[in-house]
Amino acid sequence: MPSYKAPIADMQFLLHEVLKAPASALPGYGDLEPSFTAAVLEEAGKLATDVLAPLNAVGDREGCVLENGTVRTPTGFKAAFDAMKEGGWTALDCDPDYGGQGLPYLMQSAVGEIFVSANMAFNMYQGLTHGAYSAIHAHGTAEQKAKYLPKMVTCDWTGTMNLTEPHCGTDLGLMRTKAEPQDDGSYKITGQKIFISAGDHDLAENIIHLVLAKAPGGGEGTKGISLFIVPKVMVNDDGSLGARNAVSVGKIEEKMGIHGNATCVMNYDGATGWLLGDLHKGMRAMFTMMNEARLGVGLQGYAVAEAAYQNAVIYAKDRLQGRDVTGAKNPTGPADPLIVHPDIRRNLMEQKSFVEGARALTFWGASLIDAAHNGDKDADGLIGLLTPVIKGFQTDKGFETAVNAQQIYGGHGYIEEQGMSQFARDARIAQIYEGANGVQALDLVGRKLASDGGKHVMAFFEMVKAECKAHDGDARMTAFVEPLKTASKQMQAAGMFFMQNGMKNPNAALAGSYDFMHLMGHVCLGLMWTRMAKAALVCLDEGRGDKSYLETKVATGRFYMARQLPLCGAHLARIESGADTVMALDAEAF
Amino acid sequence: MPSYKAPIADMQFLLHEVLKAPASALPGYGDLEPSFTAAVLEEAGKLATDVLAPLNAVGDREGCVLENGTVRTPTGFKAAFDAMKEGGWTALDCDPDYGGQGLPYLMQSAVGEIFVSANMAFNMYQGLTHGAYSAIHAHGTAEQKAKYLPKMVTCDWTGTMNLTEPHCGTDLGLMRTKAEPQDDGSYKITGQKIFISAGDHDLAENIIHLVLAKAPGGGEGTKGISLFIVPKVMVNDDGSLGARNAVSVGKIEEKMGIHGNATCVMNYDGATGWLLGDLHKGMRAMFTMMNEARLGVGLQGYAVAEAAYQNAVIYAKDRLQGRDVTGAKNPTGPADPLIVHPDIRRNLMEQKSFVEGARALTFWGASLIDAAHNGDKDADGLIGLLTPVIKGFQTDKGFETAVNAQQIYGGHGYIEEQGMSQFARDARIAQIYEGANGVQALDLVGRKLASDGGKHVMAFFEMVKAECKAHDGDARMTAFVEPLKTASKQMQAAGMFFMQNGMKNPNAALAGSYDFMHLMGHVCLGLMWTRMAKAALVCLDEGRGDKSYLETKVATGRFYMARQLPLCGAHLARIESGADTVMALDAEAF
Repeated sequence: MPSYKAPIADMQFLLHEVLKAPASALPGYGDLEPSFTAAVLEEAGKLATDVLAPLNAVGDREGCVLENGTVRTPTGFKAAFDAMKEGGWTALDCDPDYGGQGLPYLMQSAVGEIFVSANMAFNMYQGLTHGAYSAIHAHGTAEQKAKYLPKMVTCDWTGTMNLTEPHCGTDLGLMRTKAEPQDDGSYKITGQKIFISAGDHDLAENIIHLVLAKAPGGGEGTKGISLFIVPKVMVNDDGSLGARNAVSVGKIEEKMGIHGNATCVMNYDGATGWLLGDLHKGMRAMFTMMNEARLGVGLQGYAVAEAAYQNAVIYAKDRLQGRDVTGAKNPTGPADPLIVHPDIRRNLMEQKSFVEGARALTFWGASLIDAAHNGDKDADGLIGLLTPVIKGFQTDKGFETAVNAQQIYGGHGYIEEQGMSQFARDARIAQIYEGANGVQALDLVGRKLASDGGKHVMAFFEMVKAECKAHDGDARMTAFVEPLKTASKQMQAAGMFFMQNGMKNPNAALAGSYDFMHLMGHVCLGLMWTRMAKAALVCLDEGRGDKSYLETKVATGRFYMARQLPLCGAHLARIESGADTVMALDAEAF
Repeated sequence: MPSYKAPIADMQFLLHEVLKAPASALPGYGDLEPSFTAAVLEEAGKLATDVLAPLNAVGDREGCVLENGTVRTPTGFKAAFDAMKEGGWTALDCDPDYGGQGLPYLMQSAVGEIFVSANMAFNMYQGLTHGAYSAIHAHGTAEQKAKYLPKMVTCDWTGTMNLTEPHCGTDLGLMRTKAEPQDDGSYKITGQKIFISAGDHDLAENIIHLVLAKAPGGGEGTKGISLFIVPKVMVNDDGSLGARNAVSVGKIEEKMGIHGNATCVMNYDGATGWLLGDLHKGMRAMFTMMNEARLGVGLQGYAVAEAAYQNAVIYAKDRLQGRDVTGAKNPTGPADPLIVHPDIRRNLMEQKSFVEGARALTFWGASLIDAAHNGDKDADGLIGLLTPVIKGFQTDKGFETAVNAQQIYGGHGYIEEQGMSQFARDARIAQIYEGANGVQALDLVGRKLASDGGKHVMAFFEMVKAECKAHDGDARMTAFVEPLKTASKQMQAAGMFFMQNGMKNPNAALAGSYDFMHLMGHVCLGLMWTRMAKAALVCLDEGRGDKSYLETKVATGRFYMARQLPLCGAHLARIESGADTVMALDAEAF
């Protein structure tokens, strides 16, 4: 069975040497002293290693079961959920006014990674609750906040997000679920929602469903959509629980992975709901949550990959097979460990350099969200630009990494007992939900690049340029700066191609959108590796920190720059080939 | 539930317009007239569509069950297996001396693709039998052939290949299974074998296990290994069945996919076996089968992808979501079909252009095997070179294609009911078994490139050069010839890098082996697309064939050349970065 250990040294390095969090003026950052963050991460790591990780395979094997209309979660999930609640882990970055601990979203993300690595399906129950909490916190009335948030902060009540319907996924304008206004100010919600993660379960006494539905008078398409609070069990004015609402589970979906999380068909049969935010402005209310939710999915991408990577390393060191071609490394044993073989190394280095780069990008992204919440418009623009990359690129590469980790195991990786298949199957969903990755690419190229007159992407290029300039004359940084410069220029050339061709033919840009998302992903990770390498070299120069860790960090970065940044040229060539070959065929020709 | 339709037009185009099979002097090729091959393929297609494809999901859901020491296959498998036998499909390319139909391996491959696409797990029962048949046919005594082959040709008896043990996969030198010679000329086989596909089942009255084991006096490592015939049920001299042999199923593995095939732990407890081929030459006997077996796995890679692709196309045409940015294509409907969106097209074109290219490469490879069997040394050398590419590249891209097809379905792709997850899970094994793809890359770069003094790779380059030269002055071919020339030069540069650096540091070559396998894969498919495009243009010029099919063929090839060949440059850059960054870390640093 796979094991997991929180990568605390790497997280501390990011928080303190790269981001220098305590030096930031952002609210709460001043408290993030190394000893404090280490203590938090170590406690989270213990819970993850001892409680959550051992349940990961259990959840996969048992799945969730619908019995008499309610969902039973896998053995041990309830006790683990209680341990999570008791540890205060559900309240980390929540508003102290409602019982939260008020830590920055950055810390929430670091702890979140640990829990997701240990047990992605389990962590979704609180992850979805956090999303619903944020929506109510941002758009609820004072009364709504007082009524729901304290219980959601503790996860005594959990939350869900209800968007998708059988015939409508990305295109929410096709939505059919209806909201009929009632005399008492409530609405009757009627319709079917599908793919509702944590839609029902036995972990909490109530579930607060947030449901998109069409109320009268809003017009066609997405314009008519509003967001509603629909509790599973009605909440009385004194906060006590009342009658069951008219919402029920139609079935649990059988999925490729994340079996431990109940993905439900939810039926709303005239269920009582209350408007959240403005009437007919439900899409806007959802979208304010989007950066955070998509960053969370991008985090899942590399967090599952991290767990898979850790186990691939253990196996590669342990499994004896073949001999090092340059001379036996284990001459007294029957064979050398797998890790001596160059192609095994190539594979492991791809995994390691991706995961550490993605962690840096995600932590940086989380700090931008903190800044944006604090009114920083530039940070808000930048995280808007980065979000589709963090979501799309990181989940694609995260899945690829999990598959590569599985490959290290050879035939044993295909056997469910070993647990490597689960990492691949679980990681797969992150490429799909919260906007399939093709939709992320469309968002990036069709919307974010040009938003505010292209201001944010220009700022990003300036940032990369400044980073490169800062290391002028530092020969140790050449292996970082040169590939980053090249890749950044390739990204600019791609942007130029879109500008020159996209106006007269939008397809010329959109046909290259997926490649652009990956091109930009490599530039982002190249930027992260440049920053990390510099931070590590500074530590080495100043004689601070673990020398071996720091040298490994620089070497891992050099691998990424030498081996992954060359892909940017290929992405550019594909982009510049335009839409002609992509759109050449009639639909009938497929 | 997914559907499947045999791509007969595409197969006919390859057989008759590209390979021009009936014009070949190879034995049996003269009979492959268009009407004959069409009839065979259509009959195979009917069986695949009507009988095998509907059982694919059944096999996945039910899996195989071990009951009282024997394996029960999924519902319907026995009847389908009988239908397969009755149709003569198990005997297609087998030796007429033992009841086979003596068709070329090329036809066996075409029909094989159809059956694998429809139901990969099911087809393995006869696929493994075919491998064991080939081994006995090549290495057996006249008596052994007479005893086993007629029943194996009809699949009244099936076969298995037993190589792997718990501690030994790629490194067969670590093998522990023992063979002790008996006075009657037989051997007692003792040991445990794992991952034995079709190791036991209820489809046939006997199973002929081919088992690698160490007989006394052979020395250390792989040198001491011999190959043995170990029947599940002893076969009397008159061909009737006798007592059960001392071989039993330890358990069935629970796997990520191919649930319909029983992957068994096999225990040999002093089982009676007979030497097949020469004593202590078991590895050589296995390796004569290797090209064919690995070509078969490379075929699985794209065959499963073909089935996934077909369903992705159906879904993309059917599912209404969003609007074409250049103007509504389905203005009277609520939305346009997915297929209008450029990134959906990009995805579908990647699938289509890979599958058709891989089919061409596989058919060509099969014809080279026919030529090699007929004594053509150059063909033998060439297929030896191509085999790791066909196996490694095609199964990597096949899995990627199945995952991309699943992605078209969005959230529905993650639900098992839709069947798209199964394609991805099934395709995954082909990257692992019959030599994990890293081992294929090692075989390619560490052995095949330099074999016979590099003669075969030089011949390959000459072949590419001649192909390009043949289209000089044909402007319609420029979009093919130019990218192919560039990619071929990049491949040559990579080979040069290996030569210049690999001698003093083998790791410098091996660290680039995986990239080389993919670089060469793209060159091979580029060559195939150049040939196919030319063949299609000739047909168009001569007014033969289906104009729409032929134009689609050319357009699909243009996509592959424009969008996939640029990856070769990235692979070369990675290769030329050498081993430094790959091998920089101590094992402890991971």
